[in-house]
Amino acid sequence: MINKLTLIGVGLIGGSFALALREAGLVREVVGVGRSAENLSAALGMYVIDAYAEAAQAVQGADVVLLAVPVGQMGAMMSAIAPYLAPNTIVTDVGSTKQDVVALARANLSQHLTHFVPGHPIAGAEQSGVKAARGDLFRERNVVLTPLPETNPAAKELIAQLWQSCGAKVSEMAPALHDEVFAAVSHLPHLLAFGLVDYIAAQPNAEALFGFAASGFRDFTRIAGSSPEMWRDICLANRDALLQQLAGYEAELARIKQLIERGDSAALAQLFVAARDARQKHLKH
Amino acid sequence: MINKLTLIGVGLIGGSFALALREAGLVREVVGVGRSAENLSAALGMYVIDAYAEAAQAVQGADVVLLAVPVGQMGAMMSAIAPYLAPNTIVTDVGSTKQDVVALARANLSQHLTHFVPGHPIAGAEQSGVKAARGDLFRERNVVLTPLPETNPAAKELIAQLWQSCGAKVSEMAPALHDEVFAAVSHLPHLLAFGLVDYIAAQPNAEALFGFAASGFRDFTRIAGSSPEMWRDICLANRDALLQQLAGYEAELARIKQLIERGDSAALAQLFVAARDARQKHLKH
Repeated sequence: MINKLTLIGVGLIGGSFALALREAGLVREVVGVGRSAENLSAALGMYVIDAYAEAAQAVQGADVVLLAVPVGQMGAMMSAIAPYLAPNTIVTDVGSTKQDVVALARANLSQHLTHFVPGHPIAGAEQSGVKAARGDLFRERNVVLTPLPETNPAAKELIAQLWQSCGAKVSEMAPALHDEVFAAVSHLPHLLAFGLVDYIAAQPNAEALFGFAASGFRDFTRIAGSSPEMWRDICLANRDALLQQLAGYEAELARIKQLIERGDSAALAQLFVAARDARQKHLKH
Repeated sequence: MINKLTLIGVGLIGGSFALALREAGLVREVVGVGRSAENLSAALGMYVIDAYAEAAQAVQGADVVLLAVPVGQMGAMMSAIAPYLAPNTIVTDVGSTKQDVVALARANLSQHLTHFVPGHPIAGAEQSGVKAARGDLFRERNVVLTPLPETNPAAKELIAQLWQSCGAKVSEMAPALHDEVFAAVSHLPHLLAFGLVDYIAAQPNAEALFGFAASGFRDFTRIAGSSPEMWRDICLANRDALLQQLAGYEAELARIKQLIERGDSAALAQLFVAARDARQKHLKH
């Protein structure tokens, strides 16, 4: 049970976290911080938050502060709250990249690193805003924590328990490994999907091309409907790991291209079979 | 109303075509040709076909022959039926690539080109076999016909009407344009999805990587669950157009890579916005 939770950023992720903890009866008071009065009013109306305030005020006396703003605003927010944090207030975040958040924390929360627990819930980014928040958003989803060497084990444990109370599967990774893993299975596919749509859209007969696209194309490019600003930030924040994965994928495409050029039917079939089998083995649908 | 329809290949596509025409009351007798006795029995049980026979016998007296076998078997089938076709029997096909089918027809149906109508229904290839067949498979789907200069307009019109009776939107293209269009919006995305799964599966920590893949990754790679044999055949049959699209896409990736390397936040955001907007404009979901 925590007495006071402060949400810095009251959107889909922060709002769903608060709703899930409320439903579990684990939080008494939730205070929100945000830039949009309309969104904060909606959050009040949904009982996601009990009140809202400026960041400096909102964090005072909080047991847990959840930073759920775009990575581009994270450093400024950390700097704004740092002077007002009580020593035992635990700060955590939900950023999609972790090495950059850790670097920002080292720069802006240097007096508070024992109580900083970097985190990343892997949950739907197709929608945004508090109106899309729901208490079951994290059920059966992965949450990755990337604690620092300085992080207090009890602080980490509390954050892990809160996410577990939301129904999430919590695991732990070093920040660099986290960024490698998500460069491969999230950031790279987003880049490839944005790239394909941009490539098709730039062709002179784009309208006809899209007109003949079937359900496979729609599935493949669905993630190109995600927030451009968020994905720009992620691509730049995780630049090194993403460029490495992109280079690996380009080498894979070059290899496939050679197989097609050579007409190597057997090797091409083998590659497609391996891919289909790997997908069937590891992914449910 | 056609008196006799012959399905060469009684699977998802051929079976659904027959069911749709039956439901529309447009066909009297359907005769199937296939290699699997079990599949042909299932087709009889489902009233997809009324009888089955060897190809040479099955096409005799047919008004329409639908070639619905993998492109790899198409030439042999054309050659097998050619001597037994009545002059007024219309032959059509459902192959995913059209220049190669046209070349096979020129080689194997040279006496029958006036009555050959190449076609491509754009409908789900996730499932296969007659058991997946259903009369509404083509409703609201595109069917592209790629008639030859020799094709009799009345023959083309009949095939167009039959597909329209199945609920499909019928359009017409030159075979080369068809292959270009589908290289871009179908064959390339399949290649990219197979390639991504193969690339991830080859990494030492593949199991962990797949374990953290979220719904976006599953959507993106869904088409990598498609038939490896079919997609190998398509990639090789449409090699030139596919390699051209692949080269164009590689150039797009190289451009995106430069933006990330340079940290060009504005251009990256612009590209992502353009892609998201194009997708929203042209695709429904």
